[in-house]
Amino acid sequence: MRRLNVFYVMTLLIVAAFASGELEAAAVKANRLPNFVVIFCDDLGYGDLGCYGHPTLKTPNLDQMAAEGMKLTSCYAAASVCTPSRAGLMLGRLPIRSGMCGKRRVLFPDSVGGLQESEITIAEKLKERGYATACVGKWHLGHHQQYLPPNHGFDFYFGIPYSNDMDNVSGLPWQEGVKNPNVAYFNVPLIRNLEEIERPANQLTITQRYTQEATKFIKENKDGPFFLYFPHTFPHVPLFASEKFDGKSLRGLYGDVVEELDWSVGQVLKTLKENGLAENTLVVFSSDNGPWMPFDEQGGSAGLLREGKGSTWEGGMREPTVAWRPGFVPAGAVNAEMCSLMDLYGTFCSMAGAEAPQDRMMDTNDLTATLAGNGPSPRKEMFYWRDTRLMAVRFGKYKAHFVTQDAYTKEPPVEHDPPLLFDLEVDPGEKYPLKPEEHQPQVKKAQELRATHLASVADAPPSQLDRK
Amino acid sequence: MRRLNVFYVMTLLIVAAFASGELEAAAVKANRLPNFVVIFCDDLGYGDLGCYGHPTLKTPNLDQMAAEGMKLTSCYAAASVCTPSRAGLMLGRLPIRSGMCGKRRVLFPDSVGGLQESEITIAEKLKERGYATACVGKWHLGHHQQYLPPNHGFDFYFGIPYSNDMDNVSGLPWQEGVKNPNVAYFNVPLIRNLEEIERPANQLTITQRYTQEATKFIKENKDGPFFLYFPHTFPHVPLFASEKFDGKSLRGLYGDVVEELDWSVGQVLKTLKENGLAENTLVVFSSDNGPWMPFDEQGGSAGLLREGKGSTWEGGMREPTVAWRPGFVPAGAVNAEMCSLMDLYGTFCSMAGAEAPQDRMMDTNDLTATLAGNGPSPRKEMFYWRDTRLMAVRFGKYKAHFVTQDAYTKEPPVEHDPPLLFDLEVDPGEKYPLKPEEHQPQVKKAQELRATHLASVADAPPSQLDRK
Repeated sequence: MRRLNVFYVMTLLIVAAFASGELEAAAVKANRLPNFVVIFCDDLGYGDLGCYGHPTLKTPNLDQMAAEGMKLTSCYAAASVCTPSRAGLMLGRLPIRSGMCGKRRVLFPDSVGGLQESEITIAEKLKERGYATACVGKWHLGHHQQYLPPNHGFDFYFGIPYSNDMDNVSGLPWQEGVKNPNVAYFNVPLIRNLEEIERPANQLTITQRYTQEATKFIKENKDGPFFLYFPHTFPHVPLFASEKFDGKSLRGLYGDVVEELDWSVGQVLKTLKENGLAENTLVVFSSDNGPWMPFDEQGGSAGLLREGKGSTWEGGMREPTVAWRPGFVPAGAVNAEMCSLMDLYGTFCSMAGAEAPQDRMMDTNDLTATLAGNGPSPRKEMFYWRDTRLMAVRFGKYKAHFVTQDAYTKEPPVEHDPPLLFDLEVDPGEKYPLKPEEHQPQVKKAQELRATHLASVADAPPSQLDRK
Repeated sequence: MRRLNVFYVMTLLIVAAFASGELEAAAVKANRLPNFVVIFCDDLGYGDLGCYGHPTLKTPNLDQMAAEGMKLTSCYAAASVCTPSRAGLMLGRLPIRSGMCGKRRVLFPDSVGGLQESEITIAEKLKERGYATACVGKWHLGHHQQYLPPNHGFDFYFGIPYSNDMDNVSGLPWQEGVKNPNVAYFNVPLIRNLEEIERPANQLTITQRYTQEATKFIKENKDGPFFLYFPHTFPHVPLFASEKFDGKSLRGLYGDVVEELDWSVGQVLKTLKENGLAENTLVVFSSDNGPWMPFDEQGGSAGLLREGKGSTWEGGMREPTVAWRPGFVPAGAVNAEMCSLMDLYGTFCSMAGAEAPQDRMMDTNDLTATLAGNGPSPRKEMFYWRDTRLMAVRFGKYKAHFVTQDAYTKEPPVEHDPPLLFDLEVDPGEKYPLKPEEHQPQVKKAQELRATHLASVADAPPSQLDRK
């Protein structure tokens, strides 16, 4: 009977092994932390997607993403230009608190500053919880080694360190260079991790290559959890589309480029679906600021919103935003409540079981319930900074401008006392100022919020953008 | 065995009866003429629906209709104001050809003119094919008995004969009356068939009552075929919403009113579905012209389009249009090709097996294949008339303005020679004029089209609007 005993024991062992493996897998699945993907465009306008009303720009993948998820119609970037907007997203706090804004507005190739080591990016927070992290695309939070993504919580980086119009070596006037785009005019480096691998970066194929790297990262980390930060180079001018998209859209080169971005979104969602990750991955699509209007038809459209990139009118900072996680985010939802891309920090922390930093002033909220369709947005206020100047505040549906200035104008800023007041729900286009005498409580509230907020940034660090 | 024989014969008879019944039903179904419903808003802007990009106006029924059908993003009204736009829709021909435009722009309570007996409405055409026909809502093609819907091919009429702001008896300045809406200021009659049944029409409940009449007509004619023309009174100012909607939207009173219209659309589609008519009914939703901008937040938004009601800029005449017929119109389609509401005439004729009039100049096309997703739009040109003056022409993606004038301005019209040229696909907002010297073929083509078109209206009849 010895042999039978051996068989018996072996069988028991095998069954036990299977059972424990399955139990473990189930336990892991139940406790599995959600993955996060942030697809972040550059200078895309509020009105540039089909599902945000553009008549000729075709974005079937984003329209489908919105149909399967939630369209956020009142979601703000942290700032109206590139560097501070991205700092806000990465840190969950206003750029004024991290020194990531200044008179120069953004970082340039000759800048010496960047994101400080003392700052805690969302990637660093998620790494604490075991996330694999990648940044694929344009960084623009400092191009010197110590500022690059691998030194701020990202396991992997592939992309350009600043805007694609920088390092213009053509000798042509810049705008003329843009009107006659030629990749050789722009000598932007392409970096893998900390190493420059190509210069000038071939922008004709960059969206394709970003998409390859992004989907590869997803597949390689399908056992998760992972965080993919995917900030595209486009539709920031100069515009380049790959052969497959060049000349194909109705909307001209700008349309070609955005339709390639839409294709890329489709590839990401397809990869998630094919790898069984859709229900465990929150994908957020948005843009860093409004459309760059001086570039005429090579810039985007803010739809019915006023002005664009660089201004604190709505067109400068309200972004076309779509959140997607099938089974969690309700399909086809439209949410008009105020929220900010800075809130992704608190939301991801909450979903990943991490604690947002307690030792510093944060400007983030937890949108988990909002995105699940279970509650109002916790955000009650929005502060509109232009570089180092507080221009406006939104509280509930009211927006009070203390100072207004169009983005690209030679006119000086105009101060408003009492503030210029709008009801953004009734009048999202900021066309019809409310009468201050009929809105005394709102005027008072705006002034109080301004004073409290300014006090909270009294010890703001020096600008990294203006460092010499 | 006699008994068995009886059973056998009976069984055969029953089977035969069933089979013949089924065959007959199938034959009827195959030959059944489709029903048509046109839901037509008044002064709704291109940017006022959720699916056309409005951030706070919630139109879940129309968004769903678009998801189940086709969004037409380049569909034009026949004119930029009420009377001529409706004449174009009803007749499939430009208002200049029927005398339904003039210096007064629209018909007023003191007008003596109206739609002439010699004109052939789409309702009359469909009656020839056995359709039951109803007009529920605002007519505005003449309020004297001979001009009313029952004398132009409609079996049934319930609605107001002209705009809801006419017959202002308050003695208040008109705009002030609008800002303090009170139903008693506006003494508009409500008519059933040819009989005045209420004066002033209670506008607070009018959308509810229209919807009741419209859905009742559908149910009573479910054996079809039927044509329901459903031109709403709103969101033309003065704005009134029923108790259920008043004060409920984020977008103020304008939003309340549009959300009630959205509800009404939902009721119509629900009625069609519940009565098994969805797959055999083509529903088209649109508006007569762009938003009435001098009314500030009580007017709508044209989104990214330029200007509004009364002008021949895109905002005046391009309409948010949704076509729906499950199983025929592809779900979730977006079509950016040029078409006109005048094309509904030719489309309905084609689908109903009727022949469009051959004895007069028509301006209509057959969109059947386009709506089925099987072909490009047959429309190659669009002529933009302002009253009795040809202002602009569109051919393909190009629009050439010969004359421009904002809608509500004291500035005189500006003539352009060469014409002011835009690429509406790249630049739907008409912001960036093309250089004529770089577009000589387009300039020439525009001038030729203008000359040919003007020759085609050389024998235009006198204006019904300016008749005394």
